[in-house]
Amino acid sequence: MSGTGAGGGAHERGFASDNHAGALPEVMEAIAAANVGHAVSYGGDDWTGRVETLLSAQFGDEATAALVFNGTGANVVALQALCRPYEAAICASTAHLNVDECGAPERVAGLKLLALDTPDGKLTPELVQRRLVRFGDEHAVQPKVVSITQTTELGTLYTVDEVRALADQAHSHGMLLHVDGARLANAAAALDVPLRAISTDAGVDVVSFGGTKNGMLLGEAVVFLRPGLGEQVAFLRKQSMQLASKMRFIAAQFEALLTDDLWRRPAAHANAMAARLADAVGAIEGVTITQRVQANAVFAVLPPGAAAWLQERWHFYVWDETSGEVRWMCSWDTTEEDVDAFAADVRAALAETA
Amino acid sequence: MSGTGAGGGAHERGFASDNHAGALPEVMEAIAAANVGHAVSYGGDDWTGRVETLLSAQFGDEATAALVFNGTGANVVALQALCRPYEAAICASTAHLNVDECGAPERVAGLKLLALDTPDGKLTPELVQRRLVRFGDEHAVQPKVVSITQTTELGTLYTVDEVRALADQAHSHGMLLHVDGARLANAAAALDVPLRAISTDAGVDVVSFGGTKNGMLLGEAVVFLRPGLGEQVAFLRKQSMQLASKMRFIAAQFEALLTDDLWRRPAAHANAMAARLADAVGAIEGVTITQRVQANAVFAVLPPGAAAWLQERWHFYVWDETSGEVRWMCSWDTTEEDVDAFAADVRAALAETA
Amino acid sequence: MSGTGAGGGAHERGFASDNHAGALPEVMEAIAAANVGHAVSYGGDDWTGRVETLLSAQFGDEATAALVFNGTGANVVALQALCRPYEAAICASTAHLNVDECGAPERVAGLKLLALDTPDGKLTPELVQRRLVRFGDEHAVQPKVVSITQTTELGTLYTVDEVRALADQAHSHGMLLHVDGARLANAAAALDVPLRAISTDAGVDVVSFGGTKNGMLLGEAVVFLRPGLGEQVAFLRKQSMQLASKMRFIAAQFEALLTDDLWRRPAAHANAMAARLADAVGAIEGVTITQRVQANAVFAVLPPGAAAWLQERWHFYVWDETSGEVRWMCSWDTTEEDVDAFAADVRAALAETA
Amino acid sequence: MSGTGAGGGAHERGFASDNHAGALPEVMEAIAAANVGHAVSYGGDDWTGRVETLLSAQFGDEATAALVFNGTGANVVALQALCRPYEAAICASTAHLNVDECGAPERVAGLKLLALDTPDGKLTPELVQRRLVRFGDEHAVQPKVVSITQTTELGTLYTVDEVRALADQAHSHGMLLHVDGARLANAAAALDVPLRAISTDAGVDVVSFGGTKNGMLLGEAVVFLRPGLGEQVAFLRKQSMQLASKMRFIAAQFEALLTDDLWRRPAAHANAMAARLADAVGAIEGVTITQRVQANAVFAVLPPGAAAWLQERWHFYVWDETSGEVRWMCSWDTTEEDVDAFAADVRAALAETA
Repeated sequence: MSGTGAGGGAHERGFASDNHAGALPEVMEAIAAANVGHAVSYGGDDWTGRVETLLSAQFGDEATAALVFNGTGANVVALQALCRPYEAAICASTAHLNVDECGAPERVAGLKLLALDTPDGKLTPELVQRRLVRFGDEHAVQPKVVSITQTTELGTLYTVDEVRALADQAHSHGMLLHVDGARLANAAAALDVPLRAISTDAGVDVVSFGGTKNGMLLGEAVVFLRPGLGEQVAFLRKQSMQLASKMRFIAAQFEALLTDDLWRRPAAHANAMAARLADAVGAIEGVTITQRVQANAVFAVLPPGAAAWLQERWHFYVWDETSGEVRWMCSWDTTEEDVDAFAADVRAALAETA
Repeated sequence: MSGTGAGGGAHERGFASDNHAGALPEVMEAIAAANVGHAVSYGGDDWTGRVETLLSAQFGDEATAALVFNGTGANVVALQALCRPYEAAICASTAHLNVDECGAPERVAGLKLLALDTPDGKLTPELVQRRLVRFGDEHAVQPKVVSITQTTELGTLYTVDEVRALADQAHSHGMLLHVDGARLANAAAALDVPLRAISTDAGVDVVSFGGTKNGMLLGEAVVFLRPGLGEQVAFLRKQSMQLASKMRFIAAQFEALLTDDLWRRPAAHANAMAARLADAVGAIEGVTITQRVQANAVFAVLPPGAAAWLQERWHFYVWDETSGEVRWMCSWDTTEEDVDAFAADVRAALAETA
Repeated sequence: MSGTGAGGGAHERGFASDNHAGALPEVMEAIAAANVGHAVSYGGDDWTGRVETLLSAQFGDEATAALVFNGTGANVVALQALCRPYEAAICASTAHLNVDECGAPERVAGLKLLALDTPDGKLTPELVQRRLVRFGDEHAVQPKVVSITQTTELGTLYTVDEVRALADQAHSHGMLLHVDGARLANAAAALDVPLRAISTDAGVDVVSFGGTKNGMLLGEAVVFLRPGLGEQVAFLRKQSMQLASKMRFIAAQFEALLTDDLWRRPAAHANAMAARLADAVGAIEGVTITQRVQANAVFAVLPPGAAAWLQERWHFYVWDETSGEVRWMCSWDTTEEDVDAFAADVRAALAETA
Repeated sequence: MSGTGAGGGAHERGFASDNHAGALPEVMEAIAAANVGHAVSYGGDDWTGRVETLLSAQFGDEATAALVFNGTGANVVALQALCRPYEAAICASTAHLNVDECGAPERVAGLKLLALDTPDGKLTPELVQRRLVRFGDEHAVQPKVVSITQTTELGTLYTVDEVRALADQAHSHGMLLHVDGARLANAAAALDVPLRAISTDAGVDVVSFGGTKNGMLLGEAVVFLRPGLGEQVAFLRKQSMQLASKMRFIAAQFEALLTDDLWRRPAAHANAMAARLADAVGAIEGVTITQRVQANAVFAVLPPGAAAWLQERWHFYVWDETSGEVRWMCSWDTTEEDVDAFAADVRAALAETA
């Protein structure tokens, strides 16, 4: 999250982040059910074995996965598997990788990021092309990975064709395409496609597949979609301090989420709540929605004073102090009542601070 | 764990590691109870606030803490807070830091470890003294931290006086004392003292305080015991990829463990089971117990063939392939029945393979 | 150097880089004179002692210095002395640090750079202000250093007042000002001021003071201008692999350059040659000089084909493949004849390729 | 150098280190001769081209080289080319890599070293075997390189057969053999064999080939002896801050040293002076020579007080404060008169302090 000031509203519930929500009931039940007897640690347990099978079912037979603790860990482990330290990842300047990981890619992976400004958080082949320079020049880091976020940090998403175009471009330069999929489920739900349609089948090489924001307590998966990419990930995960000893408790959560495509439900719900919110506030005079609402986020600009009035009542982030742009995130547990009450207060804020 | 070959015994339960056990019922209940509504992420929640208070109660008013995912993460975050990269940590050659973290201290913290061979996993001032050389010599890393493990990787423990002697020595050289306390609870239980008696009050500066091995799903705490040491830990934790977003779920576990000193019960039980095991097998002819049994581990040497026979039935690790030394770990959920059945099979192994 | 394609001209001499020149005669004599008998290694020699005195004379009594091999080394050692890895340096996107050090700041110092686009290679307080955000936010690297290049990679320079404004801004945020002074001598010569006027007296905290581009074989100095900044530099230099064993041979070169302000002569000469070149080509129709010519570089755009024609005859770099902008560097040994012959060929190139 | 206290003798000349000597006349002449006109920087010059040819002549047709600044740089660049960060290098505990590089291998390359105690600075297959454990265990760094020093830090050397045995062992485990050859010339001279006999032909994979200690001002070469090992070294060298801009001045020195095997003369001379010294002092009652004198170093123990008496007059290092062992290094410029005067003073020291 690159904004500041979540507000400290009177409402306990809010629109600050999808990680303010708790865990899905199915996830909690799975953890409780996994708490039986002894299990081999570090992933040698049955739950982890079943998750590997479930991930292959989602991402394709060639997919291999390593479960990790958090999204920063997933991204940094993934990039280390793909890059030597003199290589570089191209990303949007708004990417979590670039602005919200406190320099972990640089410090832990030793990588330089080549960031590109975008209007909507999305890379395009035209933008990426600007960074495809100086190959073979020893003075410059060598582009090796294009990393996109799906859905983006700005609530937008890449279509299947957009992903494929970036993958084709990367591959034509001997590079690889990584997806920071902390909200990949939201994208698949929004596009109404399987996970593999926007990953493996679209040419993606590696995905950081998020669980936390979609109803888990914690847990992400680095999923390598092609052979030859993830062979050494066990060492990189351990060295990156992302190896859980009682792995069954992360695996059990993923097992719940991946069984019968449970992941789609919370993601689709969060998306629907954002659409409802956009509908409700978009018509209010004085509110300007600043990004396409394609997943579970609404970005908007309010008149001076209105955001502050609202933050006294509700948790959410001011995304850009300069422009006054705010971010409202919906989560799997956002209710229609939450949305409607909040939209009413947006209207009130405008009235009160007019 | 530096041994190899956990065995794949017919028994699901075993003595391979205290991280083969699940979570305490109280811990599971605390997680479930924490799964209500929205909570500020990254530690701004109420559970984390209460854990900070509870840790201060255990470790002293000046103690400040950062919750992290795992033990390697705790150690590496702690060392980064104490050292610049040209400084070094002195540790036992058997330390988890040295042999079981896949080079994370070197890679992530950039630190060189100065390891010392010991008979029992314990540093002494005499041993440490050998490494207190070359201060001011720019060609050599500069000793800054002494890191001990309590209880040690060999199941032994440091007395209060032994800890204090190491702390005094470190401080007299402008150095600091770190304790890898993945099993600090086992030490406090074994010595029947409060946690602060073997940490803050004995001169320790920073503790990696373990939760996972003592009945949590996952979670450790880096506890700074003196002012001025942990001011920047928030950045180091995030950059080291050890910051949980839904922190309440780690904090709730610690809250359970720290309330009314719950932590002492599982630790004391595991210790008692190891004592029972040592009693049961120590008298068997052919079994040589190789380390003092002071906490929840029993190290022993069996005649050739006996360990293999036993590993067909039970999970445990051969610690040293050369000498045939084995490690038997007890956990909070080891039962008297487990111990007695296992001891009976040790006797049988010796008979069968004589 | 961020351009590509130096050309492979028929002329051995050219305008590709000031590091295509050799060493000043005085420098060569100093090396030869230093080659007598035994000298204590690693800087314990008399030459190094005298250089420290000479640097204090140039930069002020509080200045302390560490001699290193090259400019990348100087910058990375300097930044390590100023920053913990979760801190960051703000620089121009064209900075050598950002584009020509193959990720050494990220890899070796573990630092993230916060780069800003500029029209002329120069930071301003207004530009820097954009990066002075998120202080205290653990998800973001913390700005700690502003790093400027003097003269810049685009041949422009900062006035004393401009430097002071950046220093004041940095200090008011608890930050520090670093100058990549690979060509600091060119700036001092151009402004006709002492080195300390644009460094110590203007509020700069640390300088990478260049020797190589100004007539040395090799050698740079990290100069700390305030107490308390460079105390640990000996360890950082050694760990960064920048400590010469036979240090007298680097020190002797600096001694030559610093004695009687010899450094000013080659720098002023290179500047004068660039001015002569700009005068000669600036009037040619079809040649657009794209940056102010304030030191020893001329940047220009030629019509399509002209640069290629010229590169067949002379060494120089195309700086920007897209715009066709070229860079012509003058050095201490560029002669008036070189400049005049080259300018004549620029005219010929335009005629031939019209 | 891991000893302390070089002494500050009245004699300017001494036996402290081979890097207290200056440069060979031929090296100085080569530098002066290279100081003509313009030359392409970063190794694109003619001198570097010729050195590459000369190195191939010495090390074999498949050899490729990268010139660097110093020995630490050479070792760390070499290891980065061979290892991913979760891999490890096995070395003697006395190795320069382990004790005299201020943690650069750990910090810059991210590597853990697996050090082994030896009586004489030499690894053997039996010693190395102890570290060939835990392959495939994600908790442990994976041995990938065996690194030996030739001649060793203790003045001993490996025979061709000893090198080959270590190479064969390494290769049989999919590992590689690196030689820190800061004094490789001394070894080849002592054994009276070509450089390739103790490197390429003995199965070595990569050599850090030293120039500085054998009469250069500064400069070392990382020489890859097999295809497929050094392809990315240009990036690693630059990122490790070991790329000289005016490369011709390092290359010219190597050209001098490699032409007509000039390197053999200074190395053989230094060896001969050490032999003369050992002969002269070995017969003195009270002097115990502690290591075989096989190259240019003499290690000895003197009675209490004698070393201190001697250090008042001559520069040399006490190698081991505890045992009182001293190191006397001879260099290419040590004279018979130096040796004889020093030996006479050793005799005097024993008499005066008896």
